[in-house]
Amino acid sequence: MTDFFHGIDKIRYEGPESDNEFAFRHYNPDELILGKPMKDHLRFAVAYWHSFAWPGGDPFGGQTFERPWFGESMDHAKLKADVAFEMFEILGAPYFCFHDVDVRPEGEGFAENTARLREITDYFAEKMENSDTKLLWGTANLFSHRRFMAGAATNPDPEVFAFSAATIKTCMDATHKLGGENYVLWGGREGYETLLNTDLARERAQAGRMLQMVVDYKHKIGFKGTILIEPKPQEPTKHQYDYDVATVYGFLKDFGLENEVKVNIEQGHAILAGHSFEHELALASSLGIFGSIDMNRNDYQSGWDTDQFPNNVPEMTLAYYEVLKAGGFTTGGTNFDAKLRRQSLDPEDLILAHVGGMDACAAGLKAAARMLEDGKLEAARNERYAGWETSDGRALMESDLETIAHLVEDKKINPQPRSGRQERLENLVNRYL
Amino acid sequence: MTDFFHGIDKIRYEGPESDNEFAFRHYNPDELILGKPMKDHLRFAVAYWHSFAWPGGDPFGGQTFERPWFGESMDHAKLKADVAFEMFEILGAPYFCFHDVDVRPEGEGFAENTARLREITDYFAEKMENSDTKLLWGTANLFSHRRFMAGAATNPDPEVFAFSAATIKTCMDATHKLGGENYVLWGGREGYETLLNTDLARERAQAGRMLQMVVDYKHKIGFKGTILIEPKPQEPTKHQYDYDVATVYGFLKDFGLENEVKVNIEQGHAILAGHSFEHELALASSLGIFGSIDMNRNDYQSGWDTDQFPNNVPEMTLAYYEVLKAGGFTTGGTNFDAKLRRQSLDPEDLILAHVGGMDACAAGLKAAARMLEDGKLEAARNERYAGWETSDGRALMESDLETIAHLVEDKKINPQPRSGRQERLENLVNRYL
Amino acid sequence: MTDFFHGIDKIRYEGPESDNEFAFRHYNPDELILGKPMKDHLRFAVAYWHSFAWPGGDPFGGQTFERPWFGESMDHAKLKADVAFEMFEILGAPYFCFHDVDVRPEGEGFAENTARLREITDYFAEKMENSDTKLLWGTANLFSHRRFMAGAATNPDPEVFAFSAATIKTCMDATHKLGGENYVLWGGREGYETLLNTDLARERAQAGRMLQMVVDYKHKIGFKGTILIEPKPQEPTKHQYDYDVATVYGFLKDFGLENEVKVNIEQGHAILAGHSFEHELALASSLGIFGSIDMNRNDYQSGWDTDQFPNNVPEMTLAYYEVLKAGGFTTGGTNFDAKLRRQSLDPEDLILAHVGGMDACAAGLKAAARMLEDGKLEAARNERYAGWETSDGRALMESDLETIAHLVEDKKINPQPRSGRQERLENLVNRYL
Amino acid sequence: MTDFFHGIDKIRYEGPESDNEFAFRHYNPDELILGKPMKDHLRFAVAYWHSFAWPGGDPFGGQTFERPWFGESMDHAKLKADVAFEMFEILGAPYFCFHDVDVRPEGEGFAENTARLREITDYFAEKMENSDTKLLWGTANLFSHRRFMAGAATNPDPEVFAFSAATIKTCMDATHKLGGENYVLWGGREGYETLLNTDLARERAQAGRMLQMVVDYKHKIGFKGTILIEPKPQEPTKHQYDYDVATVYGFLKDFGLENEVKVNIEQGHAILAGHSFEHELALASSLGIFGSIDMNRNDYQSGWDTDQFPNNVPEMTLAYYEVLKAGGFTTGGTNFDAKLRRQSLDPEDLILAHVGGMDACAAGLKAAARMLEDGKLEAARNERYAGWETSDGRALMESDLETIAHLVEDKKINPQPRSGRQERLENLVNRYL
Repeated sequence: MTDFFHGIDKIRYEGPESDNEFAFRHYNPDELILGKPMKDHLRFAVAYWHSFAWPGGDPFGGQTFERPWFGESMDHAKLKADVAFEMFEILGAPYFCFHDVDVRPEGEGFAENTARLREITDYFAEKMENSDTKLLWGTANLFSHRRFMAGAATNPDPEVFAFSAATIKTCMDATHKLGGENYVLWGGREGYETLLNTDLARERAQAGRMLQMVVDYKHKIGFKGTILIEPKPQEPTKHQYDYDVATVYGFLKDFGLENEVKVNIEQGHAILAGHSFEHELALASSLGIFGSIDMNRNDYQSGWDTDQFPNNVPEMTLAYYEVLKAGGFTTGGTNFDAKLRRQSLDPEDLILAHVGGMDACAAGLKAAARMLEDGKLEAARNERYAGWETSDGRALMESDLETIAHLVEDKKINPQPRSGRQERLENLVNRYL
Repeated sequence: MTDFFHGIDKIRYEGPESDNEFAFRHYNPDELILGKPMKDHLRFAVAYWHSFAWPGGDPFGGQTFERPWFGESMDHAKLKADVAFEMFEILGAPYFCFHDVDVRPEGEGFAENTARLREITDYFAEKMENSDTKLLWGTANLFSHRRFMAGAATNPDPEVFAFSAATIKTCMDATHKLGGENYVLWGGREGYETLLNTDLARERAQAGRMLQMVVDYKHKIGFKGTILIEPKPQEPTKHQYDYDVATVYGFLKDFGLENEVKVNIEQGHAILAGHSFEHELALASSLGIFGSIDMNRNDYQSGWDTDQFPNNVPEMTLAYYEVLKAGGFTTGGTNFDAKLRRQSLDPEDLILAHVGGMDACAAGLKAAARMLEDGKLEAARNERYAGWETSDGRALMESDLETIAHLVEDKKINPQPRSGRQERLENLVNRYL
Repeated sequence: MTDFFHGIDKIRYEGPESDNEFAFRHYNPDELILGKPMKDHLRFAVAYWHSFAWPGGDPFGGQTFERPWFGESMDHAKLKADVAFEMFEILGAPYFCFHDVDVRPEGEGFAENTARLREITDYFAEKMENSDTKLLWGTANLFSHRRFMAGAATNPDPEVFAFSAATIKTCMDATHKLGGENYVLWGGREGYETLLNTDLARERAQAGRMLQMVVDYKHKIGFKGTILIEPKPQEPTKHQYDYDVATVYGFLKDFGLENEVKVNIEQGHAILAGHSFEHELALASSLGIFGSIDMNRNDYQSGWDTDQFPNNVPEMTLAYYEVLKAGGFTTGGTNFDAKLRRQSLDPEDLILAHVGGMDACAAGLKAAARMLEDGKLEAARNERYAGWETSDGRALMESDLETIAHLVEDKKINPQPRSGRQERLENLVNRYL
Repeated sequence: MTDFFHGIDKIRYEGPESDNEFAFRHYNPDELILGKPMKDHLRFAVAYWHSFAWPGGDPFGGQTFERPWFGESMDHAKLKADVAFEMFEILGAPYFCFHDVDVRPEGEGFAENTARLREITDYFAEKMENSDTKLLWGTANLFSHRRFMAGAATNPDPEVFAFSAATIKTCMDATHKLGGENYVLWGGREGYETLLNTDLARERAQAGRMLQMVVDYKHKIGFKGTILIEPKPQEPTKHQYDYDVATVYGFLKDFGLENEVKVNIEQGHAILAGHSFEHELALASSLGIFGSIDMNRNDYQSGWDTDQFPNNVPEMTLAYYEVLKAGGFTTGGTNFDAKLRRQSLDPEDLILAHVGGMDACAAGLKAAARMLEDGKLEAARNERYAGWETSDGRALMESDLETIAHLVEDKKINPQPRSGRQERLENLVNRYL
């Protein structure tokens, strides 16, 4: 035991009335919700990068956190892992997620990076034998090192494409070895800073080809997890190719991968793209590409990725309502892609931020489940579209402009608007909270 | 002659040194640019709605313009047409565009609307016999009347779908009759206000089906023009389904229409979606769906559609550079989807706004052409991607992750970043202005 | 009785478990909160304009509502008033607010406008004798008519300044007559569309002079209410002079009016200015100019004034927490400057939107009161600044740079950061909801 | 000579037709504009931090630049200074600006920081004896070190206030010693992350007190330069107290400092606050607090500080038009608070970025001067307000509401709107470009 968390005990459920900061008020892992334990609905994961690798910097200031594992040796990496698994245990986190660079120091080149990743993932594997925490997904960080400054798959330099491909292979191997349930691609530098030096069509083709290679390799090694793309509109780039769910869908269709790849949707990225989180969830579900979520909260008024822990239960409710309507997670889960504010220096802050986030999600899930069980919202929606379920409605979808024009003229069709009842439905939602 | 424009004469080209407000300083219709007359590059169109139908209202105030043709009779509609054609003549505008509701008063129902549209388009047809102004595109306004408040094709009520289909047919007929070179769909209400009352998947299917009907009808009547969708992210809706070019592309692929339908890209709509105009142009071109442009300027800091006349020549240059690289317009053109500020009350304002916009576009086109002819920008771009044109580069695109990983390891590939030279290229662009 | 509301009865409090749409679940007018009846904390007002005068239009479509009182006669105006007072009664609304143009048809000029306003406010006065609903504030609409298109007080034309001044006098008289508790100025056109035609310094001076006249007139007629300015950053203008609370404060200081005028803060306007609502409340309170609130909700992702009814209880909690910390309302109150979505056509929608909004505010107030009573949040805040309450801390504020530099050098002061505990405090807030 | 710039010669003016990348096409230092040499109008300064201290990092990646002076020793600091002065020479930059942390390595505490700053500024002083480059302004970086994470003047911990005060004194001394013409305060952490842990009123009072101390110390040491505050709305904070020009003005008025302190306005910060650059310039001028400018360009669609070199000449024109109307700079100047894109790795990029920026500013200045000399724009503006120069107009400003109401009624004043002519004026501006 590292004692980093100063003897904080495992967090237990104590119910809504508890005033113990170190207890769950809503997250009760084994409580059945719609017949399934809450933990299996939510499938929480801790993000290694924000919790253990981020030093607290922002564009105007450097490190604020002082962690005993900050350093460039493998011993530091192992100490970091020790603390991480202690935190997973304290939180009862069923999953975690990581990038290669979060868990191992940067080496001299590809070979050393690979060797170090193997060493640390062996170390993880040992720990996981005595832990209830599994790997939700692994991924390669192809955006932080200066070699990726102009893109990874979409780099003008084929050597960077090659280095990226090799690194992805390594990370897929590591994920597979650890029993990861998904493999994620976030293309932080797959985009451009200026069109003046960019061949957008070529770069898009490179990205498509890389994704095909990833899918091929998945099948080759027998990885049963899901390949996920994480959309984001911009930052660090001026424009990122995986802008939002709709953009990724068009891209997948173009390369014939819409049945092979799904999306990992982040609340903050949805917001930055101008969409509500529930929009992105509903759209992905309707297109058959809903995979997993990165849960956080973006300040609506800060134009960058704020990655805050979620805390607005009404918003969580609408999000999990879409997750439930999509049938819930299969291989996906709720990954807290959220970081402490850089002023939150204490080990306790790290625990409490997760406790609060897990509770907000759990409260949202429960409200969403009540809303779905009660059925009033769905009934109102269905009633609104009832005309399309009549034979006339169905026939219309099979008809053509000319026939319809005759119909409208002959029957003097003059449709009368009906109330959309938005406020009434908003009131209804508030009842389940 | 109506004398609305108080004897303003046809606008002539007088060159950059002219200080005559009522002259072109850059737009010289017959001047050859890259071997083609400027007018055939730009293919300017006047938008009937903003110039002749909009009363000057905004959400906080009503009509400011006092036009003799404001009124609900067919005589008013004809006077409006008289003035419009006079303005086309003054500007030497090669094209115009219109919605049904711009040109005829609203009738009691579909039949009367149709009859009135026929009457007024017959009146147009007569005028066009003695005019050099042709129809760039026609379209149906399926967003202003209260019957469309919850959508046209995507309405929960099948009767509205039917009314919309019939109206589109009528407008396609009118466009075909007048020799229109395109038919445009802008789905101002094809989206939602709240997901709570919306079945997004169903509405998307309705929109797809309507578009298929439009394409079928086009072929049936032998209309040779292009069907265009105009993307916009939101406003009036909270979310519009045709969010941006990438979204429309995914939609077209889904319904198998990517070879049948192209996009009409508006500067202001690009901006509101978080994209630069040139991004949307370059993307559409790379996806093979570039069709036409709605030229205006959106205030970057006002979160609604400001539809101002363009005046920033450096921005026009980047836009027309993409148009030229895409091969220029075929059936498309430059439609001024721009309106006077509501304080610009005078007939002269209407003329001068167009003169300024045409000049800004012409200056941009000329700079873009110089830039393309000079070739330095394209040379710099090509040089950046030169590695991909080597046999090693080409082989990489055909390889797989495992082979590449071996290659990286064996050859100790360790790519070194090269300057992206953005500022240098920005300086270069400024030389052509 | 007009029967517009089809026999909807007075809304009663039934408690959180009620599933009656037409009941309050949280708003219990006489329930004591921190020793004061809830109704006296919240001081709800109905906004005449959105509820009774707005036809449902937006920039892309016209009227959707069909109300029997839409029309230009005084009889229409009286029917409108009848329905309005019926709604006040149904809701148990303690207050209402109005602009002159909401309540009377536009006349031929100033004299007729004045006469009509007198006639309708006499009609109001009669009704108010038998009603529990009082006037929170009155105001003049100096933005909708075309005469105000270039500003009211800030117009380049002195005649418009004069017309505006005269109209304000009339509206102040009306407000005074009806016992209004405040008089509000919202300068929808007091700003500019382009700096090119604007003399910003001169216009600002005009605005300052008009405000001084308003204050003088208030004293002259013995109006005891508060003069309020309502900040908004833009829309309809490109830039509105009363941008936000901080801007208004500087303006008041400049004209020596900071003790005479306070602010009416709107949630949506705060959002559009890039601030949270609670920021604007806290700032106004700290500057001594907090007056009243316009309660609504602006879609964070739509760049225009969406004026939706509030429904996010966590946000309401933070807002009323600031109101309570500011000492609560004196003459101010909670005016619902919120409108139905334009698809919400039914009379029931109008009632239910208010019921939901009142309930969201009441739930927020109750949570805020619990939070304040419990004291944990304030204790944490005070503890953070405790160093400033020591004698060393106090001395520092009286010192000078040189003395302090010596002190830092001599005592080797090297401050160590302490956790800001943001997530912990966010968790704490969630406990009171 | 360090040879960092590989023998790039001093940049000379070669005129608009030059295609030499390493020449000025518009900036001709001694050319007279409105009777004054261009260099004295523009007063260009190089920003030490972006050009020499920034490693190329962003929130998603680290260092991209490899500079021989990166390191923590005083030798590194001196090498950096050598290169900096070589660049000033190459560019012919009349000024530079710096923060303490840009120029010296961080020491163990205040005393060592002070000693190092003295040592390096002595080194600067020597260099400046043989250089034409002077110090436009100095400043203290009170935002990067973790001790400032919760603010400097506005920190909850008085020790941080003390450390900040001492550091400011040191930096003012250094600025004074080097003959700096201004001293700037940018409060990057003077704001808050969350209101939950913030006492906004107290923090504002702390900020006010610190500013008074700064002004007192200026007078004490006989510093003749101007004290400048640089407004910015947010980033790194959620809300920065010096939000924009209007906010700073109210703050200065509150502490009685409006005649002692002026503003340093940054284009990018104006944009992020929702204002055009020219708005902030015009406002500051009208309030008598215009001081200096930080020239850069913020991407309108990226919600963070992009600090790009300016390149849009029409925008520069509007900015310098306001500067000229304000009477030009006195102690202020044009500081390039602009950084290379992180992919622009080469020494040449650093030179060319400045060359392009200087040329864009010079072109803008020249166009602005032509516009001012020609007088048509000012004439149009004056004509618009001519009514206020009549005796009736002037009398109105001295009148009162009641008198005016009688006047309007008696004279049946019914103002008629006149065209605002925005498009016509926009066309006019385009003529000078």
